[in-house]
Amino acid sequence: MAINLDKVGVEFTIPPFDYGPQTVELYHLGIGATELQFTYEKELKVIPSFAVVPAFMVLVESVGLVGINPMMVVHGEQRIKILQRPIPWTGKTITTGKVVQIYDKGKGALIVVEGVTHDEGGNQLFRNIYRLFARGEGGFGGERGPGPKNEPPNRRPDHMVELSTWPHQHLIYRLSGDINPLHVDPEFAKLVGYNRPILHGLCTFGFVCRAIMQACCDNDPTRILDYEARFSREVYPGEAIITEIWEETDQRVVIQAKTGDGRVVITNAAATLSR
Amino acid sequence: MAINLDKVGVEFTIPPFDYGPQTVELYHLGIGATELQFTYEKELKVIPSFAVVPAFMVLVESVGLVGINPMMVVHGEQRIKILQRPIPWTGKTITTGKVVQIYDKGKGALIVVEGVTHDEGGNQLFRNIYRLFARGEGGFGGERGPGPKNEPPNRRPDHMVELSTWPHQHLIYRLSGDINPLHVDPEFAKLVGYNRPILHGLCTFGFVCRAIMQACCDNDPTRILDYEARFSREVYPGEAIITEIWEETDQRVVIQAKTGDGRVVITNAAATLSR
Repeated sequence: MAINLDKVGVEFTIPPFDYGPQTVELYHLGIGATELQFTYEKELKVIPSFAVVPAFMVLVESVGLVGINPMMVVHGEQRIKILQRPIPWTGKTITTGKVVQIYDKGKGALIVVEGVTHDEGGNQLFRNIYRLFARGEGGFGGERGPGPKNEPPNRRPDHMVELSTWPHQHLIYRLSGDINPLHVDPEFAKLVGYNRPILHGLCTFGFVCRAIMQACCDNDPTRILDYEARFSREVYPGEAIITEIWEETDQRVVIQAKTGDGRVVITNAAATLSR
Repeated sequence: MAINLDKVGVEFTIPPFDYGPQTVELYHLGIGATELQFTYEKELKVIPSFAVVPAFMVLVESVGLVGINPMMVVHGEQRIKILQRPIPWTGKTITTGKVVQIYDKGKGALIVVEGVTHDEGGNQLFRNIYRLFARGEGGFGGERGPGPKNEPPNRRPDHMVELSTWPHQHLIYRLSGDINPLHVDPEFAKLVGYNRPILHGLCTFGFVCRAIMQACCDNDPTRILDYEARFSREVYPGEAIITEIWEETDQRVVIQAKTGDGRVVITNAAATLSR
């Protein structure tokens, strides 16, 4: 299969996504958040990583659009920018996707995709940026793109937050829309080289978002403006996720996360905060 | 408020309820069932206690119909009869409710309500029978109704199954439709005399259904034909539910359940099985 380089700049839409308190609460349980403010509609607040849910189909559509084999694609990085705070706990949303860039990484292609989500009135709610690595699709003579950023400084982290995932975490998370068999089917997981189904990268993304909120934002979800992370290794349901956070400026933190046994699972991560 | 005795025999409908695999899987997680056959759409089987979900609004509507104060109503007993096996994992359902009988228990009224659920083609899927106790509504000179049944025999149970509920069990269960604040709001729970939010009676009902399936049916959900239980005491999220089962005949078992600290929470319970 050859990658369609001419799809750079092409826009597409995904089906409208309507959500309400139940959608938000289910997502929150999917990332292990049980606090009353995240699970009860009386005073419901939306954790910013929820932004990935209404836009999820951008990921799926973009793979089809550029014509690559979904089995060869790794969701490498995710970034969210929150454009309206607080994120409303109900909405009828429209998301427009766009292939922003395709880089040539030699062994594969790095596809940068953006999704902008609006409400019914046309107000931008949030923006998702996906970096997808397509194995075997490199070597087409394209630009290599920027190198690593968000390196943690060479000192002990300023904050450490340990959050446990439940053994059934993946089973809850998948009900928010990502029903990829890799995250539920033991046979499928073995086929692609894992001992058992792995947690969704975006589920880990949510756990780390909670850790940032707890360590740096008094658990206030409205104080995260921008957050990005790279999925370096798999996490298994039931494992603990230990997030290390370095304060870089008043507004900016650099982040890394590892499992209880020391596997580094989130790298190249940072957040911009309102404090 | 005076109970409307003339509503006996009156039929009513509730809004249609459409469901799919996500609905069923969410319910299953709500009753702690994580087995692949209950959480993955590839070979999804429906646990029979799911029957309470499409018909849930019968409970709410019937309270309004007979004109009693919802704050004074206790959901005393639940019975399900499975009319189509296996229960399909997707459906567009219509449920018709009916007030079957109102008994005079002295201190209160016992209202018996039935809900029959059909699919689009008019095929009966299952039947729910609710017994609601309305405190302060007795003494109207009505029939007292039948006494207790399903008493466990005076010997050790033939089976014992211990299932743990999660500390966040109520938060998952409520996403299947019962958003009564008693099961989430700590202030509300204290107001009505509990230390903290209690588990939904119908959630315990589902746990005991799973226990029956495991002990008597090789975990095959199609083998339960009829199942009823009384909610005797509250269960708190995180507690273990220990189900004791007595084999009465080839087809019939009598059941009781208690928490880890010995509070008897399910009594007057029985099931008819296909074995």
